[in-house]
Amino acid sequence: MVRASEFETIQRYFAPLSTNAAGAFGLSNDAAVWQPQKGHDAVITTDCMVAGVHFLADDPPSLIAGKLLAVNLSDIAAMGARPSAYTLAVAWPADIDDKWIEAFAKGLGEAQMGAGISLIGGDTVATPGPLTLSLTAFGEIPIGAALSRGGAQDGDDVYVTGTIGDAALGLKLRLGELSLDHGHDRDFLIGRYRLPQARSDFGRALPGVASAAIDISDGLLADLGHIAEQSGMDLEIQAADIPISASVQTCVDVDPALMALVFGGGDDYELAFSAPSEKAEQILTLADTTTTPVRRIGRVLNSSNVTPEVRLLDETGKAIVIDRPGFRHF
Amino acid sequence: MVRASEFETIQRYFAPLSTNAAGAFGLSNDAAVWQPQKGHDAVITTDCMVAGVHFLADDPPSLIAGKLLAVNLSDIAAMGARPSAYTLAVAWPADIDDKWIEAFAKGLGEAQMGAGISLIGGDTVATPGPLTLSLTAFGEIPIGAALSRGGAQDGDDVYVTGTIGDAALGLKLRLGELSLDHGHDRDFLIGRYRLPQARSDFGRALPGVASAAIDISDGLLADLGHIAEQSGMDLEIQAADIPISASVQTCVDVDPALMALVFGGGDDYELAFSAPSEKAEQILTLADTTTTPVRRIGRVLNSSNVTPEVRLLDETGKAIVIDRPGFRHF
Repeated sequence: MVRASEFETIQRYFAPLSTNAAGAFGLSNDAAVWQPQKGHDAVITTDCMVAGVHFLADDPPSLIAGKLLAVNLSDIAAMGARPSAYTLAVAWPADIDDKWIEAFAKGLGEAQMGAGISLIGGDTVATPGPLTLSLTAFGEIPIGAALSRGGAQDGDDVYVTGTIGDAALGLKLRLGELSLDHGHDRDFLIGRYRLPQARSDFGRALPGVASAAIDISDGLLADLGHIAEQSGMDLEIQAADIPISASVQTCVDVDPALMALVFGGGDDYELAFSAPSEKAEQILTLADTTTTPVRRIGRVLNSSNVTPEVRLLDETGKAIVIDRPGFRHF
Repeated sequence: MVRASEFETIQRYFAPLSTNAAGAFGLSNDAAVWQPQKGHDAVITTDCMVAGVHFLADDPPSLIAGKLLAVNLSDIAAMGARPSAYTLAVAWPADIDDKWIEAFAKGLGEAQMGAGISLIGGDTVATPGPLTLSLTAFGEIPIGAALSRGGAQDGDDVYVTGTIGDAALGLKLRLGELSLDHGHDRDFLIGRYRLPQARSDFGRALPGVASAAIDISDGLLADLGHIAEQSGMDLEIQAADIPISASVQTCVDVDPALMALVFGGGDDYELAFSAPSEKAEQILTLADTTTTPVRRIGRVLNSSNVTPEVRLLDETGKAIVIDRPGFRHF
């Protein structure tokens, strides 16, 4: 197995990803220098992924890299910020060779180019355990404009981007816990699990429009639950309005119980947000200009409960009870 | 084994570490909001530590936490910056229980209080592998004032803080590869390996004084080599001037070959820097006001080599040849 030293690995594969950021010093310094542009806050997020837990060890390295960046950029988008830069910490197991690292760095390079950002620092170490990746992403937003999970108001509409449940079904397919005849549906769903797309363009346009936002990583109902809890509001969601892909529809037609994965499965990295009803038209325009599918799925209501709740309703207005409201990585 | 959910773990043990930072939202948001104070750059560094590689799995959790923060703050100090905040990503193996996490968080709390900083975000995940910790630290420095490894000039003096080689001998003792009769020396050296102290107060006073700086993590000669290479200068170091502790002296008296670990061992997290000779008095004053031991160990010279080099000289001016110039974690 060919494996360069840590220093050579950084110089050969990662330093080229830093060339657009002067303050990265070509990854040759103790730390990077960076600042948000004038009048802007920095938005900072960290996400960690472990082989066998958050991705499969034999997934293509470029997709692992793309997912690692996407899950972080999704958090930046949920804050309403524009992505700017990132640092990377990697613990490599002994069976990762130069070829793997090269493909990983290439995937990272493509993903960062898509987002218009640069690597500005990091650390690479050896581990006797599984490949462990930790990425810290930086965004910028006008001071005070960052969105939070609190802020949803009585009467607001609730929206989601994209389609929900794709990734959870993709993982099931990937693990062989579900089978699907149609190759296209299978590829689509597994692709959505392997390489989510952060809603960066749409997210950064949400400040001044949305009242609260979150990205859907732990499952739609669990993540909406965070908005409910931190806003002190109930959310009423129309199950029939939750957007699902044709591929998920195919699966659900065969086994309706799979809808639980639409409500509770994670890893879609779509955005969920609330907004006053007078913003509806502006949101449609925004969806159009950023070519982002957006759907209204419910509304925000004053809560009469001690613990605000998310109510999922069927077409007759009856509550749907879900056993497992969220997906937890633990 | 008692183990709370990821959400409860964060709320119970880590959210209290974020209360001094408004932009951390009590660790309840997708990302944190932070900015360097007006007229300042952000300085950003990431360091990763793996159980069995960078610390021993049975080391006390509070010391592991303290070391994790210290190695990052050492990078911030080497840039001449003031530490401000940090994010943490942790991959917990199954045998880490709540009691361990509580002790780890307590150690982190004590370490951050000592540095006057706050946790502002992070991620905790499960791993089938060893405990893996990744910390990203943020500092602040007046715009353009950050130190780098380049910048050493012909005629500058070379200095180090503290004593060198303690941690490398401490690790050898801890691993049972070295024995030492005197309990105090043993405790001191192992303590230096387990819990380095970042030279934060001294480092942040170095801009305008030092011409180049680095923290000694990979070994004195290896890290001085980075200054030589990036400054395009040779460094001449007087071996007899390298400050060593009484405990290292005791070991070296028994086995002079252990001096190789002073020259090449890592993990001391002291600062090495160059400065024009007219700054000598200012540096002594600074050492005094920050109670930081500082010693001049050599000088910077124009290099006549294609690859600038670090020359280690004995008391007669003869070059000392070291087989293994640096410690690499790989």
